[in-house]
Amino acid sequence: MKEIKTDSDFPGQVVSAIRKVVGTKPAVLHEPSFEGKEWAYLKECLDSTYVSSVGKFVDKFETSLAEYVGVKYAIPVVNGTAALHIALKLAGVKPGDEVLIPALTFVATANAVAYCGAIPHFVDSEEITLGIDVKKLRDYLISITDMRSGISINNKTGRVIRAIVPMHTFGHPSDLDGLLSISKDFNLVLVEDAAESLGSSYKGRHTGSFGLISATSFNGNKTITTGGGGAILTNDEILAKQAKHLTTTAKRPHLWEYDHDEIGYNYRMPNINAALGCAQLEQLPQKLSQKRELYFQYFKAFDSLPGIKLFQEPANCESNYWLHTVVLEETHAQYLKTILEQTNRFGISTRPSWKLLSELTIYQNSPRMSLIGATSLSNRIINIPSSSRLSRGTK
Amino acid sequence: MKEIKTDSDFPGQVVSAIRKVVGTKPAVLHEPSFEGKEWAYLKECLDSTYVSSVGKFVDKFETSLAEYVGVKYAIPVVNGTAALHIALKLAGVKPGDEVLIPALTFVATANAVAYCGAIPHFVDSEEITLGIDVKKLRDYLISITDMRSGISINNKTGRVIRAIVPMHTFGHPSDLDGLLSISKDFNLVLVEDAAESLGSSYKGRHTGSFGLISATSFNGNKTITTGGGGAILTNDEILAKQAKHLTTTAKRPHLWEYDHDEIGYNYRMPNINAALGCAQLEQLPQKLSQKRELYFQYFKAFDSLPGIKLFQEPANCESNYWLHTVVLEETHAQYLKTILEQTNRFGISTRPSWKLLSELTIYQNSPRMSLIGATSLSNRIINIPSSSRLSRGTK
Repeated sequence: MKEIKTDSDFPGQVVSAIRKVVGTKPAVLHEPSFEGKEWAYLKECLDSTYVSSVGKFVDKFETSLAEYVGVKYAIPVVNGTAALHIALKLAGVKPGDEVLIPALTFVATANAVAYCGAIPHFVDSEEITLGIDVKKLRDYLISITDMRSGISINNKTGRVIRAIVPMHTFGHPSDLDGLLSISKDFNLVLVEDAAESLGSSYKGRHTGSFGLISATSFNGNKTITTGGGGAILTNDEILAKQAKHLTTTAKRPHLWEYDHDEIGYNYRMPNINAALGCAQLEQLPQKLSQKRELYFQYFKAFDSLPGIKLFQEPANCESNYWLHTVVLEETHAQYLKTILEQTNRFGISTRPSWKLLSELTIYQNSPRMSLIGATSLSNRIINIPSSSRLSRGTK
Repeated sequence: MKEIKTDSDFPGQVVSAIRKVVGTKPAVLHEPSFEGKEWAYLKECLDSTYVSSVGKFVDKFETSLAEYVGVKYAIPVVNGTAALHIALKLAGVKPGDEVLIPALTFVATANAVAYCGAIPHFVDSEEITLGIDVKKLRDYLISITDMRSGISINNKTGRVIRAIVPMHTFGHPSDLDGLLSISKDFNLVLVEDAAESLGSSYKGRHTGSFGLISATSFNGNKTITTGGGGAILTNDEILAKQAKHLTTTAKRPHLWEYDHDEIGYNYRMPNINAALGCAQLEQLPQKLSQKRELYFQYFKAFDSLPGIKLFQEPANCESNYWLHTVVLEETHAQYLKTILEQTNRFGISTRPSWKLLSELTIYQNSPRMSLIGATSLSNRIINIPSSSRLSRGTK
């Protein structure tokens, strides 16, 4: 165990540790890099005039992405929020249902639930994965659910608990075995929010391939980007067809007739964004290797510093290390704000985890279990500069 | 009046008339063209690494677009549907409200209403503008509304009628004086669906600048394109700020804290799409001039053909002529399907107007007035190839 000392220059030592890796120039939290065929594909896309909702890059991106993740179908859409919205709808989430999501996640997870007219039900997170605390959740569900006709009913609200949405925090896979087990025992549809975890795997299988249907993101701050973008992932042919249909205004195929058989969405990823995505996806293995190298560099820099720990991928997992993360020990939690202030003052972009969604006014009436783990983590997590180009000595 | 003859080769004559203008090669309905700085701006965007939700092209597109339309604020978003969704929310449309929209429009107009939890209330269209029949609508509203505390209540459903959404069909401005008058007399918020009418003006003012808040689109099939994209337009500073806030996940500004004070949306237009938009907007005057030239060419080709009329911009309006349109006379309505079949068989992309939204199963329970005008139009309208590059003799 590291020696614990409450050194008043602790924040300065954190700045020094980060600078050992990123140097003295300003470093943003995460920036994209374009080192492959981005220009060539964008030009080809423009020259073809197919820049919009159909085109060869959309087709290619669908195929390449599905192959990479190891699912049968990938449906590119405008962003990860849209992907999760449709994934939840197709998972059968209905107005008035409850959906279990971590309190420690980006607001989009809860918003996608709200777009379905459903209610986010906040669950706790744990230290090993930064994801849902499966053990505590099982005990909680045993105490608050009644099973009626095979459906879990919240015995406090009377509402159906329809689905569970783990989010793989900063790219680290949640406890998927435990989640699959809960999903089965309580008949909850598993929908992965894999917005942050493209390239991460759990026991050799990619995140996003465990849920009945899952969502990922290619926002500008993610490991690879399409400008704005996301994708729905599934192995289920019927759900895949429905996802394509729902995201393309639910228009029935016809050369000229306009017949729409559902209230659909205009969520398709434009071909020009998919062109960028195709080039970026080709570079994903290289970026993952750079991000892993950056992990080792940070590990060395933080190893001798007491009171703080660089977050390491969970056992049996391979993380994409999307956002590198240091976690303060309880003894040093009081330094969080000072560290954020000092690092940002020195041009080192850092940020805490999100404010717990259960604390936002908009979700103040949502049900929740005890969030002791998530609360503690949210007072101790700091993300540090994580761009793949920051790693040195790798290509 | 033209001589009316029911010539069995009438469809063949229509094919010939279109071919006089577009030639014998296949012609799609509408394709984008990139003849300006598209490639330069895309490359600059990529080189800057700012491809996502912020960047100089988003800022420039906001300013240039607002200036072009003559509104104080333009907020670029992922598409026209998203723009209309947020415009309606900010217009005060609440779950359970009714919103007046034409039955003769693309499904997105109704879907945006449905996303607000509101109910589309279908109104009739007329021959002069292809937009809302203002005279008939006034009589209808007098008969079905009660004014209570200054709010129009549908006396059949008991629901509030909150807003009216004219759609400027194929780019032709609706009767905006009449609509403003109805908006005032019945206290209905005017929200323009200007998805098709960028570049069109009514009595010298651009469409999209009459509503309290309006929406436009830059989909690939529109006069100018951003791949996928749209924008919210308004002169109201508070609404503009709310629109920006709501479309960027409703996050309160802070360097690192995540506080979201509303259920927001991830609707921002990425910088890379805005880069395309900046280049396209610079070419809009040229494209409008080419589309007008194409109108004159079609006019000559169809002038001598009885039973069919090329649609002409309404009086006091300047249309963008987004989609050129022929309207069959009642005597020739029976040829609609054959003309669609023959033209498409010859590689000439044509399409009818949309199926009336009131006829879609998803909206079968929505209230509606008599739709005699819209029904007749929907049986007689054919859009013909309209790409700006089809015009000859212009630059």
